Amino acid sequence: MLTSRSTVFESFPALQQLDAKDRDWLVKQVQVQHFPAGTRLFYEGESCAGFLLLLKGSMRVQKLTDNGHEIVLYHVLPGQSCKLTNSCLLGGQRYPAEAFSETEVELLTIPKAAFKQLLEKSPQLRNAIYSSIDDAMSELVTLVEEVAFGHLDHRLAQFLLECTRQQPRLQTTHQAVATELGTAREVISRLLKEFERNGWLKLHRGSIEITDRAALGAI
Amino acid sequence: MLTSRSTVFESFPALQQLDAKDRDWLVKQVQVQHFPAGTRLFYEGESCAGFLLLLKGSMRVQKLTDNGHEIVLYHVLPGQSCKLTNSCLLGGQRYPAEAFSETEVELLTIPKAAFKQLLEKSPQLRNAIYSSIDDAMSELVTLVEEVAFGHLDHRLAQFLLECTRQQPRLQTTHQAVATELGTAREVISRLLKEFERNGWLKLHRGSIEITDRAALGAI
Repeated sequence: MLTSRSTVFESFPALQQLDAKDRDWLVKQVQVQHFPAGTRLFYEGESCAGFLLLLKGSMRVQKLTDNGHEIVLYHVLPGQSCKLTNSCLLGGQRYPAEAFSETEVELLTIPKAAFKQLLEKSPQLRNAIYSSIDDAMSELVTLVEEVAFGHLDHRLAQFLLECTRQQPRLQTTHQAVATELGTAREVISRLLKEFERNGWLKLHRGSIEITDRAALGAI
Repeated sequence: MLTSRSTVFESFPALQQLDAKDRDWLVKQVQVQHFPAGTRLFYEGESCAGFLLLLKGSMRVQKLTDNGHEIVLYHVLPGQSCKLTNSCLLGGQRYPAEAFSETEVELLTIPKAAFKQLLEKSPQLRNAIYSSIDDAMSELVTLVEEVAFGHLDHRLAQFLLECTRQQPRLQTTHQAVATELGTAREVISRLLKEFERNGWLKLHRGSIEITDRAALGAI
């Protein structure tokens, strides 16, 4: 079932400060849409149609290069807005990357013109958007550093530990892990086999089972 | 000789729209400072003291990693503001990188409180700052892609061509080029020697002389 349009206020605290008249107006502007997993939510080069707030599911923002490589820039989780969208909305440039739904998603959109009107009215909203953009900038700087200098074995171990906090087995492919870490599938397969030989994990068809978290954490 | 504080209006068009009263007030707030080459202008982890506009010279914003690697994020040239500073000013986070003067610089600063007041008053200024941040975001996304997947020989060739548009000889060290491209000095030295063997450039003590621009452009 789709979330009601009025839940935008619970989902995004910066909007709770709007007065009754603005809230009523806003509820009429927003759209709530539902997409299956694997839907492309925006394209690189597309101009930004509106503010995006994820209500349910998760989406992935990634860069696709000319020669078919992919690198994940960040993920968006429920209650979060899309940072690159916020920057494009404010700056007016076209999207420098693309986004996909990773699961079924419920996505709330405030059209660009309405969002810009709200932004002029609400210092709280401006501050929330500024923080989101500044976070994204810091994260991108860190990503540049990691990609340039981070040792891949360390990054892979950290990624596996992060994804297996709830259960020891991660349903994924070597290609998906490679995309996440911005490298080639062959490189990830080689490292995973090395980790398996060391007894730190077991490779199954379509999943990776962590067997020694302490050893992975020590890399 | 230091530039007069009132030149802030010529240097940064978004401020020209302020009314006479705001302009008079602003002129009293700004500082113009002069620094020799190689001065650290801000540190990673420092909170942002104010808006920075470069009047003369050039500065370099870079990330220094725990194990002593450096990668240049971008350069700031006369008439430009520092994009990371703009993001930190708005978002309130600490600097995720550091900046150095590359030549003697003349730097205009508007203290944070005064800048935030101006920003609330002037939609033109807000738009200029938003564009600067959005540019930086797109550039960082591109840098992530380049660092992750860009072939280093291509990036090195493009860098050398870019730096030698005015004259064929570039005064630099292999370490400085490595820092610029986010890699190790040894890697750059190896590539430069290969380029020299191919007859595309000549290596001198402290400089690189380009001898075949067309060949470098074709890499």
